[in-house]
Amino acid sequence: MKRVDFSRVNITGGFWAQKQELVRNVTVNAVYDRFYETGRIDAFKCDPNAPIKPHIYWDSDVAKWIEGVAYLTIQKKEPELEKIVDEIVDNIEKNQDADGYFNSFFLLPDERENRFKHRDCHELYCLGHLIEAAVAYYQATGKGKMLKLMCKYADYVERVFKIDASAGFTTPGHEEIELALVRLYECVGDERYLALSKHFVDKKGEENKALTDWADLRYCQSHKPVREQEAAEGHAVRATYLYCAMADLALKYGDTCLKNACEKIFDNIVNKRMYITGGIGSSRFGEAFTVDYDLPNLTSYTESCAALGLALFAHRMLLLTNDCKYAEIVERVIYNGFLSSISLDGKSFFYTNPLEILPYMINKDTSQAVKNQLGLPETQRKEVFECSCCPPNIVRFIPSIANFIYTTDGDTIFVHQFMDSTAQITLGDKVVTVEQKTDYPYTGSVKIAVKGAPVRLAVRVPQWSDAYEGESDGYLYKDMTDGQELCLDFKPKIKLNYANSNVLFDLGKCAISYGPIVFCMEKQDNPAHPRSIIIDTRGKMSLGHSSDLDVMTIEADCYIIKTDDKLYSSKPPRLEKSKATLIPYYAFANRGQDDMQVWCLYK
Amino acid sequence: MKRVDFSRVNITGGFWAQKQELVRNVTVNAVYDRFYETGRIDAFKCDPNAPIKPHIYWDSDVAKWIEGVAYLTIQKKEPELEKIVDEIVDNIEKNQDADGYFNSFFLLPDERENRFKHRDCHELYCLGHLIEAAVAYYQATGKGKMLKLMCKYADYVERVFKIDASAGFTTPGHEEIELALVRLYECVGDERYLALSKHFVDKKGEENKALTDWADLRYCQSHKPVREQEAAEGHAVRATYLYCAMADLALKYGDTCLKNACEKIFDNIVNKRMYITGGIGSSRFGEAFTVDYDLPNLTSYTESCAALGLALFAHRMLLLTNDCKYAEIVERVIYNGFLSSISLDGKSFFYTNPLEILPYMINKDTSQAVKNQLGLPETQRKEVFECSCCPPNIVRFIPSIANFIYTTDGDTIFVHQFMDSTAQITLGDKVVTVEQKTDYPYTGSVKIAVKGAPVRLAVRVPQWSDAYEGESDGYLYKDMTDGQELCLDFKPKIKLNYANSNVLFDLGKCAISYGPIVFCMEKQDNPAHPRSIIIDTRGKMSLGHSSDLDVMTIEADCYIIKTDDKLYSSKPPRLEKSKATLIPYYAFANRGQDDMQVWCLYK
Repeated sequence: MKRVDFSRVNITGGFWAQKQELVRNVTVNAVYDRFYETGRIDAFKCDPNAPIKPHIYWDSDVAKWIEGVAYLTIQKKEPELEKIVDEIVDNIEKNQDADGYFNSFFLLPDERENRFKHRDCHELYCLGHLIEAAVAYYQATGKGKMLKLMCKYADYVERVFKIDASAGFTTPGHEEIELALVRLYECVGDERYLALSKHFVDKKGEENKALTDWADLRYCQSHKPVREQEAAEGHAVRATYLYCAMADLALKYGDTCLKNACEKIFDNIVNKRMYITGGIGSSRFGEAFTVDYDLPNLTSYTESCAALGLALFAHRMLLLTNDCKYAEIVERVIYNGFLSSISLDGKSFFYTNPLEILPYMINKDTSQAVKNQLGLPETQRKEVFECSCCPPNIVRFIPSIANFIYTTDGDTIFVHQFMDSTAQITLGDKVVTVEQKTDYPYTGSVKIAVKGAPVRLAVRVPQWSDAYEGESDGYLYKDMTDGQELCLDFKPKIKLNYANSNVLFDLGKCAISYGPIVFCMEKQDNPAHPRSIIIDTRGKMSLGHSSDLDVMTIEADCYIIKTDDKLYSSKPPRLEKSKATLIPYYAFANRGQDDMQVWCLYK
Repeated sequence: MKRVDFSRVNITGGFWAQKQELVRNVTVNAVYDRFYETGRIDAFKCDPNAPIKPHIYWDSDVAKWIEGVAYLTIQKKEPELEKIVDEIVDNIEKNQDADGYFNSFFLLPDERENRFKHRDCHELYCLGHLIEAAVAYYQATGKGKMLKLMCKYADYVERVFKIDASAGFTTPGHEEIELALVRLYECVGDERYLALSKHFVDKKGEENKALTDWADLRYCQSHKPVREQEAAEGHAVRATYLYCAMADLALKYGDTCLKNACEKIFDNIVNKRMYITGGIGSSRFGEAFTVDYDLPNLTSYTESCAALGLALFAHRMLLLTNDCKYAEIVERVIYNGFLSSISLDGKSFFYTNPLEILPYMINKDTSQAVKNQLGLPETQRKEVFECSCCPPNIVRFIPSIANFIYTTDGDTIFVHQFMDSTAQITLGDKVVTVEQKTDYPYTGSVKIAVKGAPVRLAVRVPQWSDAYEGESDGYLYKDMTDGQELCLDFKPKIKLNYANSNVLFDLGKCAISYGPIVFCMEKQDNPAHPRSIIIDTRGKMSLGHSSDLDVMTIEADCYIIKTDDKLYSSKPPRLEKSKATLIPYYAFANRGQDDMQVWCLYK
C-alpha cells in the first residue's frame, strides 16, 4: 500500500472542513499566544538572563506548533505565522552549537554539562519533533534552513549515540526521534537516518536501569527487545510513537519479525486496552497502559496525545498490512477520543479525556493536597498546560487529517475515511481526481466521483454499517470508468454497544453510538443524574439537534430510578418513564462543569 | 433511660459468646504479643536509651488493651493478664511527672519541651484512653492505683487547660478525653471532671487555625461551636468520640441545645453518610466524612474504630431519647461494619472495611509509590498496624458488647439487642433476672424469661422484621409476671435492599441481607466475577452453610453476563442462568485475597 499525502487532498466542506477552519482561525493563534506568554517562543533566543527558564521539553511544544503552521500553509499561505516560524528558525541557527546540538534548556550555561546524560531528559524527543517540523516546513514552503540545521543535529546524534556510543544512555526515555528519523530519511534520502532510527529501535531492551525512581523499564518500553513485545506497555504516548517507528521500519526493511510484533501489540491494544472512544492509557500513574480489560471510567486517563498516537500507529499498520481493521480504529479515534481534546470554540484543550465525570467527587475535599491525590480527571478544558504537549499536537493533527483518507495499491484506490474533499491521486503515471461529496458523519451518504482515468475503487464499509455486504476484507470493490460517480449510503443507525464482560466497570451498562460517533450524557440535558437513568432498550431512540452546542443529539426513551428519602430500603425503586438526551462524546464539557458519562444503565 | 452495665449481664451462649471466647482465648493475647514485639509495652518504662522510640499515640493503644483485659476479668479472672497490667501501672507510677503529666513519648528528655504545644499530638487523646482503662480496671479488680494516677494527671490537665489556660492550644485535635472525663466523674463522683469535659466541648469552634497543613478545622470538628453543628464532619473516629461526649453532657446537664445538635448530627450520619454495613467515614483522605450520599464502594474507607464509635454514640443517644432508631444502628454496626474488622480466627484485623475489593486494581501497578496513591483498600487483615488503634478497640468492645442489650425506664426493662444471656437488672429496689434464650441472628427466635419480680418488658422489633406490629415507637410492650417467659420469633427473611438514588455508586444495584446481617459475594464461591452476576429478583433465594468458613450463606438464583471475545459489540450480552453464593459481610477476606462486593446487579 502507498500513502496519499494530505497535501494532495483538499477538504472542501463538511465536518472536517469546519474543524480545519477552526484550527486556522482560532487554535493555531490561541496556542501561539499561550506559548508566547509562557516564554516558550522566546526560549529559542537562548538568553541565559531571560526571566523565565525553559523546560527540557519546551522545544517539542513549539516544534509541533511549527509543524501545524506548515500544514496550514500547504492549503493557504499564512504569512504572519510563517514570519514567526522564520524568526524561530533564525534563533535556532544562531544558537545551535558548533557540533549541531540544540535544546533551549541544555544550551543554558549551567546545563551544558548535563547534555545526553539522563535518559528521561527529553532531548532526543525534542529533536524528533524539531525534525518533523523541519521536514514539514520545508515541504510546505520550500524553505530548507531548519531542515539543514536538524540534519546537522541528527548527524551529531548519530556520532554520539551510534558511532562513538558516548552518551549517558542508549535509547531515548521518550520515543519520537525514531519515527522522525524515518521521515527525515524519506525527505532527504540519506539512509543513515533510517539506519539510526533502526539503531534506536533495535537497542530497546538493552537497558537494565529503571528510567526514574518511579518509572520502570516497562514505562519506556525497554522491558524487552521490541521484537519480543506482545502487549502495549508503559507510558501510552511514548509507546504509540515507538510502535509507529516499528511499523515504519517493518515496512522499509521488510522486517516480518517487527511486523509481527506490531500486529500483536496493536491487537492487544484494541482488543483489551482501549476505551470505546479510542482512548488509551487508562492510568494516570505513569500516563500508562496497565493490564488487560482495566478500563475504569471515572479515573480514565486517556491522554489526547495517546489517542492521536494510536491513529498514527493504526494508519502505518494499514499501509503495512492493507487490513481495514486499522482504518476502523482511525475512525474511532478521530471522531471520539481524539476530538474530545479540543473545545468546540477551538481555544481550550483536554490533556486527559475521561469517560465519566462526577464533579462532586472533585469538589468534595477542601485541601488541594488531597485533590491532587485523587486521580480524578480535569472537568474543564484548559488553554495551556505546564506540560503542553497536547494543544500543538492538535494543531498539527487536524490540518493533516486527510492523510487517513486514501491509500493506493497498484491500480486500486482505497477509500478508508469519508470526508467532503477533492484529491489528486497518482497511480503509476496517471493522476486521478477523486471527489467525495458527503456530510458524513451526520449521514452515511457518500458520493465518490473519479476523473482522469478508469480506476478500481475499494471503499471501506464501516464496521457499524449494515448497508453493504462488502468483500470478506471489509472493502467494497468497484471498477470505475473515467467520470463515473459511485453513490453509497452506509445508513448509520443509533446503536447500543456492550463491552466485553471482562471490563468490570462496564458490566450492566451500554454505550450509545450513531455511525462512528460515541455519545455521552451530560446532566444539564437530562431530567435526572445520568447514573440514575436506565436506557429503555425496547423504547424509541431518535436523532435531534442541540441548539446551544450546534451538534447532533440522541433522544432515548428511558426510566429514571426514583426512591423515597430513606438511605436504605427493601422497597424496590420506582422506575419513572422519561426521555434521555445524549450528545456526541467529543462535545462534552463545553457548557461548564457537569456530570457526564458514556456508559449507561439499560433495561 | 438508665443503662444496664455489661457487668450485670452474662452472655452464656450463641453468636456473641463465641466471639467473646475468641477474644479471651486468642485476640487479647495476639494483640499483646504484637504490642510487646513493637515496643509498645516497654515504652511505659520510659527508658530514654530504649532501642525503639515510642510514638505519640502508643499509650492509647495499650490503654485500650488494658480496658479490654479489665472487661474480660469481670466475667472470669485472667491472672497472667492482670500481672502484665499491674506492671504497666507500676511503670506509669514510676515515670509520671511530679505535676501528674504522663505520656511515654513526651517524657523523653528531648520531647519534654513539646508538651501540650501542638494540637495534633494526641496527648489528651492518650489520657482519655488511660482514664477509661483506669476506671475499667478499678471497677473490674478493685485496684485503684491507676485510677489515682490518672486523676492526678486529669487534675494537671484541668490546671493547664482550664484554670491557667497556658497550653499551646484550647481543645484536643483528637477527641476522646471528653467522654473519658464523664466516665471518670461517674466513677469518682468529682464534678470537676464533668465540668472539664464540658469545658473542652464548649471551647470547640473557638480555634481558628487549621490543625495541620492538610487538616482543616472541619477535620477536628472545630469549624463551629458544637451546638451549631448539623452534620457529621471531618475525621470520623474523632467525630464519633466527640458526639459521644456531647450526648453524655446533654444527659448530665439536661442541655437541650446540645441534645438537638446530637440528634441532627446522628440523623445526618444515618440518613446520608453511612454505608449499609454501618461503616462511616467514606474517604481515606483525612479518614473522614465527606458530603451527603458520597458512599463509593471501591474506595470506601470505613475505619473499624469509626463503626465502633458510631455504636457508642448511638447507645448514648438511646439513653438520651428512648428512640429505637438508635438501637437499630447499634445492631447494624455490631453485625456488619464493626464485626468485619476481626478475622474469624481472631488474630488479624482490618483498619478499613471496604464494601468492594477488586484485587487486580491493587496489584496492577508495579511501583509501591503508585500503589500508595491509589486510595484502594487493604485486601487482607493484618496482625498489627503502625497506627494500631483498631485491634485493641476490638479487644475492649466485644467483651463489653452486652452494654447494648438493656436499658431501664422506671418499671420497664427495654430489650434492644438479642443475645443468649442472663442479666441481673436493678429496678428501684428490686433485682430482676432476665434470661434470653436465642440463637439470634441465625434465627429470629427469642425467649425472654423474667424472675424475681413482675416487670414490664419493652422489646425492640427489629426494623427488618415483618413478624410483629409493635407500638408506634417500635417496641413490643408486655407486662410480665414473675417467672413468665415471653416467646418471640422475628422471622428473618432474605431481603434485597436498595440505596437512595442519590447514592450514585449503588444505582442499579441491590444488597442482600438476612435479619440484621448484610451479605457479600466473594469470587471464590461463585461461577463468575461478582460484578458480572445479576441477582434474579424473581428467582429463589435460600439459606445455606459454608463448611470452610462455618458461617451461614445465601444461595440466590442469578444470571451471568456472558459476551464473546470482542472488546465492544452491538450484540447484547447473553444472560446465563446460574446460582450465586453470598456470605455474611463480616466473614469476607478469610480465605486469601479475593474479589468481593456488597452491592450486586439485579434484574
